[in-house]
Amino acid sequence: MGLYVYKFGGTSVGTAERIRAVAGKVLAARERGDDIVVVVSAMSGETNRLVALAQEMQEEPEPREMDVLLSTGEQVTIALLCMALRDKGMLAVSYTGGQVRILTDDSHTKARIQEIDNERIHSDLSAGKVVVVAGFQGVTESGSISTLGRGGSDTTAVALAAVLEASECHIYTDVDGVYTTDPRIEPRARRLERITFEEMLEMASLGSKVLQTRAVEFAGKYNVPLRVLSSFSDGEGTLITYEESEMEKALVSGIAFNRDEAKVTIEGIPDRPGVASSILSPVADANIEIDMIIQNVAADGTADFTFTVHRNDYRKAYEILSSTCRQLGARKVSGDEQIVKISLVGVGMRSHAGIASTMFRALAEEGINIMMISTSEIKISVVVNEKYLELAVRTLHKAFDLSEAG
Amino acid sequence: MGLYVYKFGGTSVGTAERIRAVAGKVLAARERGDDIVVVVSAMSGETNRLVALAQEMQEEPEPREMDVLLSTGEQVTIALLCMALRDKGMLAVSYTGGQVRILTDDSHTKARIQEIDNERIHSDLSAGKVVVVAGFQGVTESGSISTLGRGGSDTTAVALAAVLEASECHIYTDVDGVYTTDPRIEPRARRLERITFEEMLEMASLGSKVLQTRAVEFAGKYNVPLRVLSSFSDGEGTLITYEESEMEKALVSGIAFNRDEAKVTIEGIPDRPGVASSILSPVADANIEIDMIIQNVAADGTADFTFTVHRNDYRKAYEILSSTCRQLGARKVSGDEQIVKISLVGVGMRSHAGIASTMFRALAEEGINIMMISTSEIKISVVVNEKYLELAVRTLHKAFDLSEAG
Repeated sequence: MGLYVYKFGGTSVGTAERIRAVAGKVLAARERGDDIVVVVSAMSGETNRLVALAQEMQEEPEPREMDVLLSTGEQVTIALLCMALRDKGMLAVSYTGGQVRILTDDSHTKARIQEIDNERIHSDLSAGKVVVVAGFQGVTESGSISTLGRGGSDTTAVALAAVLEASECHIYTDVDGVYTTDPRIEPRARRLERITFEEMLEMASLGSKVLQTRAVEFAGKYNVPLRVLSSFSDGEGTLITYEESEMEKALVSGIAFNRDEAKVTIEGIPDRPGVASSILSPVADANIEIDMIIQNVAADGTADFTFTVHRNDYRKAYEILSSTCRQLGARKVSGDEQIVKISLVGVGMRSHAGIASTMFRALAEEGINIMMISTSEIKISVVVNEKYLELAVRTLHKAFDLSEAG
Repeated sequence: MGLYVYKFGGTSVGTAERIRAVAGKVLAARERGDDIVVVVSAMSGETNRLVALAQEMQEEPEPREMDVLLSTGEQVTIALLCMALRDKGMLAVSYTGGQVRILTDDSHTKARIQEIDNERIHSDLSAGKVVVVAGFQGVTESGSISTLGRGGSDTTAVALAAVLEASECHIYTDVDGVYTTDPRIEPRARRLERITFEEMLEMASLGSKVLQTRAVEFAGKYNVPLRVLSSFSDGEGTLITYEESEMEKALVSGIAFNRDEAKVTIEGIPDRPGVASSILSPVADANIEIDMIIQNVAADGTADFTFTVHRNDYRKAYEILSSTCRQLGARKVSGDEQIVKISLVGVGMRSHAGIASTMFRALAEEGINIMMISTSEIKISVVVNEKYLELAVRTLHKAFDLSEAG
């Protein structure tokens, strides 16, 4: 018996039948004696439909009105889910973000939660009700509707779990947990029973789509145990929590990868102070996010400068660099759109040396050339040609013994 | 220059193109120097889509949640219209019913407006903004979303016009005004320039679908001049206002009719006190609305009792009467589903005698048998066989000289 916050995404509430299945999961929890707060997203497809309508009205839709529009998606789901819960004999009540006063700042379409009023929810739970809250949305100080941006429903769920001091926050998705790597690439990938917030953050930021970074950050900050589970089957899922002494002490917890990478290089730059800034500033001004950066100084005193960007930004970054190249009198610009980033993640790296060399040796043995390397306290990332993606992931999965036991 | 409340129904905002056309009408008004508050309904088809979803969840959807669900329809429209207004260079801001605090009672799905906060709207108008308000919805004292039921958007518009002391409330529809009768029946029907609230109320309650009764009542009560116009063309429409001395003094303003009628008769009832109540109470208990009632006492001391109901309720009313017939020891029950009610409406009737006899004579000359008659201060209604509907309407239109001049 405890208080749980359950979050169901768009696919999990995409049809009337699936909403009824969600109600079934809540009923099972109620029969175990748990208090349940449910956070839901818009039914899958709904947000795209609304965005298309907005774009017919205004090329760059007004952010305040965009939030008024998009927030209707979750509002539909909370009402339908309450009806399904009541149909199964439970007491249930729905709230929009504004109604439980999920107070945010004024940054429409990407607002940040500042405060939540938990009094109303606690009183409903005491009255034996299931409380259903619209994810992704809040209200500004002046009473306007705001939305939290990408992955906002996860953030709503975690924030509610934090203020309600829930036992756990359950994020129901279309996968049954966090895996050592993507099972579509490595069929022997193993579901992790536990993973730390830090590892999950690295996995998420490295392209693992299970959870949004912001929600994990939030959960870590407020120490909300997060559990990722499947909406469509039973099972324990993966618990994301703080590092604990009894935790499985694997060197490497998982392998993340990101296909959306491209790299650009500017060669033969006269090496003088401030050159990195003159290269990177115009790129940042164009709102292009830069990931890995490498600078080499050659024997002739000139430097090469390489960085990776999202593949969608490749053309733009290439053009900007070409112009910088002329201004700086550098030799030339080159680029590669066919690269991927593969990363080992694990808190075990903190206390173990030799992981990088094991990684590089395993890749070398398969003839996989490493183009770039970047490391952090609990992660090592390499950039390789995208044709090696599957081979590299499977090779590393085996080298670090991540497969299902037996 | 003045303050106007414009209301656009579902058909008028049914597509992106139509929403842009609405924005065009508002722009024209702004260019004339008028302050504009727009009230909109859900895009046509949207409410039906939502109701169908609800019915998949729960056989009789929870009214509170139904309101949460249905209110999203108007919320989508206010956001889209604001985007369209801004796209044409106007300042615009949207509000849900709750945001401008359209306070209602707790009767979910058929709530009544109790109070509106006009401060926010006045301040937006002063700042040069077009204010767009979601029709049909409000908020209860405890902060739940409520809806006003059928025709609720008209009511919202009139209520706003009342509290804002607007010059006029414009109801944009798919017709260009109120006609002497339905032009599909009588092509020579004439658009009325003016009509009184009382006449409009009678027309509406008698089946003329231009405006909902509640909105007209509200407008009459708070003396809000209402104008019915077309969303799709220009023109003055019809002004609905109080009777004024200079008003055209027609005996009859219009002819309304209602095809949804059926009548049931119970014959040979022992005539004793309380018999009407024993007949009507079980019908009322079954939530069947009764319209016209006639009681005759025959030479043998027994009575016949006839009343009309909505055609959808005919079977049920017939069954109830059959059971009452056995209990009272009456002779028999009969009924007729093929009747229509035709009504002359006009404030001129107050001061002119002879209208009924002109009406009856005109119908008799065409061989149209009158089954029931009912009169009020400004209306005479007759029930006839439905096969005579068109003939009767055209005959009366001519008898009272209602056609277009020329």
